[in-house]
Amino acid sequence: MGRKPIYTSVYNQMKYKIFSGELPIGSPLPPERKLAAELNVSRNTIVRALGELEAEGLITGKMGSGRYVEALPPVPAISRVDWNDRHAHRSLESSPSHMAELLAIADDDPHIINFAHGDGGKRTLATSRLGEYVKAAAERAESYYFTSVKGLPQLREQLVEWMGMEQISSPEQVCVTSGSQEGLYMLTTLLARPGDAIVTEMPTYFGSLQLFTSLGIRIIPVPLDDEGMRVDVLEGILARTQPRFIYTVPTFHNPTGRTLSLSRRRKLLALSERYGVPIVEDDAYRHLHLHTEAPPPLKQWDAYGNVIYLNTFSKLLFPGLRIGWIAGSRQIIDLVSRLKELSISTNALGQIALAAMLADGALRPHLANARQHYVLQAKLMESHLDSLRHLGIRYEIPAGGFYFWIALPEGIEARKLAQRCRAAGVSFASGDMFLLREVEQPYIRLCYTHEGEEAIHAGMSILSKTLRELMEETR
Amino acid sequence: MGRKPIYTSVYNQMKYKIFSGELPIGSPLPPERKLAAELNVSRNTIVRALGELEAEGLITGKMGSGRYVEALPPVPAISRVDWNDRHAHRSLESSPSHMAELLAIADDDPHIINFAHGDGGKRTLATSRLGEYVKAAAERAESYYFTSVKGLPQLREQLVEWMGMEQISSPEQVCVTSGSQEGLYMLTTLLARPGDAIVTEMPTYFGSLQLFTSLGIRIIPVPLDDEGMRVDVLEGILARTQPRFIYTVPTFHNPTGRTLSLSRRRKLLALSERYGVPIVEDDAYRHLHLHTEAPPPLKQWDAYGNVIYLNTFSKLLFPGLRIGWIAGSRQIIDLVSRLKELSISTNALGQIALAAMLADGALRPHLANARQHYVLQAKLMESHLDSLRHLGIRYEIPAGGFYFWIALPEGIEARKLAQRCRAAGVSFASGDMFLLREVEQPYIRLCYTHEGEEAIHAGMSILSKTLRELMEETR
Repeated sequence: MGRKPIYTSVYNQMKYKIFSGELPIGSPLPPERKLAAELNVSRNTIVRALGELEAEGLITGKMGSGRYVEALPPVPAISRVDWNDRHAHRSLESSPSHMAELLAIADDDPHIINFAHGDGGKRTLATSRLGEYVKAAAERAESYYFTSVKGLPQLREQLVEWMGMEQISSPEQVCVTSGSQEGLYMLTTLLARPGDAIVTEMPTYFGSLQLFTSLGIRIIPVPLDDEGMRVDVLEGILARTQPRFIYTVPTFHNPTGRTLSLSRRRKLLALSERYGVPIVEDDAYRHLHLHTEAPPPLKQWDAYGNVIYLNTFSKLLFPGLRIGWIAGSRQIIDLVSRLKELSISTNALGQIALAAMLADGALRPHLANARQHYVLQAKLMESHLDSLRHLGIRYEIPAGGFYFWIALPEGIEARKLAQRCRAAGVSFASGDMFLLREVEQPYIRLCYTHEGEEAIHAGMSILSKTLRELMEETR
Repeated sequence: MGRKPIYTSVYNQMKYKIFSGELPIGSPLPPERKLAAELNVSRNTIVRALGELEAEGLITGKMGSGRYVEALPPVPAISRVDWNDRHAHRSLESSPSHMAELLAIADDDPHIINFAHGDGGKRTLATSRLGEYVKAAAERAESYYFTSVKGLPQLREQLVEWMGMEQISSPEQVCVTSGSQEGLYMLTTLLARPGDAIVTEMPTYFGSLQLFTSLGIRIIPVPLDDEGMRVDVLEGILARTQPRFIYTVPTFHNPTGRTLSLSRRRKLLALSERYGVPIVEDDAYRHLHLHTEAPPPLKQWDAYGNVIYLNTFSKLLFPGLRIGWIAGSRQIIDLVSRLKELSISTNALGQIALAAMLADGALRPHLANARQHYVLQAKLMESHLDSLRHLGIRYEIPAGGFYFWIALPEGIEARKLAQRCRAAGVSFASGDMFLLREVEQPYIRLCYTHEGEEAIHAGMSILSKTLRELMEETR
């Protein structure tokens, strides 16, 4: 039986005899000498095994009178498991359930005008050719069987080419995830323990906020201005605290749409290096500029491997396949895949479809086409918003991404507006979701990419009408 | 700004001034009175905000001489993040990487004869009609967008009907997961903390062992005999320890193929109730009997909601879609979905395909057809094994499930046999994976469902030849 020590075997045999009742409670154990002879092992082995049993409280040694099987503790009558008492994940319940709330919208009412979900729009689905690739994948047997933990090798090769960064030169530096949210979940679990702190822009993506607070991670907020994250504030934080990592959406930030300037990108990397704090760069919106391309990702200037890069097909294409990826130094990717292994791997079918789509070069034309739609959709939504400016709303015209981040007129409650609009058939996210504290925040986020022009027109008309009504009421 | 207390706002303003350098290190803070006037708040508010800043070490109060911005701690020169030092998940590295090892087989060599993976076989894929449903799902826009955290409502409704248990009467008692492995991962995270103990059969499914050890959970093993788990031994364990849950595969157990008898099912439930310990019932192989149907699941006799039921389409059909489910009392399912929320949801496309397949009643005919294949495949593999009996191998003919669990002849090392066979083009799992300690165990597990008859014949011939050679060598 190889390397297994003999005393372990003796220990196990004795334990089973006790647990199974073969050695009943209170019964005396044979003397060490006799046990050694019976089991054909040395007396030392017996002593060691008995020592372990004693340490576990299974037997009790009475000086001079040998050893006995220990009596059982009294049994309470329980019957029903109390799950609230059982579960070991306290922070989970105390954090708000925004993700579930938003995701249920489409299932609850398929006809709702949806400005809430951030995804590639309905208009571009048909022209994306993704469906063709999924159907082709459906014909292949490999789609129905297991693939590697890190993901389909062909997809990882394509992703290396797609990213086109010197820093990510091998498929072994990529781990495919079930959306970038699973990626962030795994990284947070790997890099931080409950009670640890991380730094992130504020406001930020509600999915990340909910994730951090649910895992009991403290969030140190950094404000944004026109050039993105205030790295001067970040420096003050890093000089005084030791966050586990910096989570940032530097390009077309969600929800503000802002992009970190070139000089601040350099500064942010320098800070990461100076203080040895990793950066988790969420680059989901990179290719979704409306007019001008975004500056290069932080990862591209990362000299020391401190940046972990996250991206997802949920924004490049559509979120239903749940496929994203993490890229980084081999060391961190190997750690990530050890964790990924615990839930096996991401669905093979979607990976096969996307690998083929990338290999055919079909993603770039889709994005070029999608951007044309998004420009029009953003313009249309903006024309409606513009007509509300005189009511006191404020917003910036986004340079990319999926959203308008809108400050409401004085005295208008975002949640109330959202509830009224939902009842009237339009759904969107309210500002409190994107902020640390569960207080009313006078912001809303509208996604302009999901719905086609007709629905944008109809939805914005409902929103305008509802806002005007609310203003009348609160006057 | 709603319920947010005023001092928090003052605190945040002061903090940003310090972090951003507007109030440089060592600079004096204005007196409380002056600050209160400047910010138009009460002096009490100022005192409270300054108190928080002081507690965080951002300012220092010198008696009689006012407050100053605290000096920064010295900055070490770090540059490169040390990931080994950073990562917070120690137990992950110390556990073996069996899952990754086995999963990579098909990607590394698509032509290998695969007795390693446990899944619905290649022979039944074409006749399963699953491909048709996936292609139909690929045509539907909903497949590419978000669905609910708990899973597509239509699929959950179908699953309630499929399970047909009084105990699971509502779709709200079901949470769709990315395979049952994700289900077990979530349940373990919810119910146990590192250092806690759980109980399970030994040997058992390597994926569960790896999961538990990677999460730092202690495993208390219970042996099996012809009637499945030794519940008498379990009783001894429960009387003396407080495991967080009992993980069991009571029906066509992996790898032994054994099924818990009716009387022991009653006893197991009674023990769960007596000691208030939850049961996690992994029922993946239920419908995969070769001749006689399995006894009802534990969940069906669960009077108190103590049983959490796990199942997966990976075994009913094929694993590539990564879709399984958890069913249980509303309370535990709500907790599970809070955790599921953190990684958003399972892919919509696969859920839509499977919901349609169930609604059409196409799963039962597939299973009936698959079982016919599996009977033949098991028989063929057994005929090869039978011819090796005289060499000293031992095994039982399984009544269901996917595997033969084979004890090797004296002196033959399972890992060595596996390596030799793999080099010769045949792959399978070696026994050590299914046991708690990383020692050589003279067992191998062969899956008879994955490969068609020709490949079984070819693979078993290679295995026989390799075994004979090894026996010659070790003689």
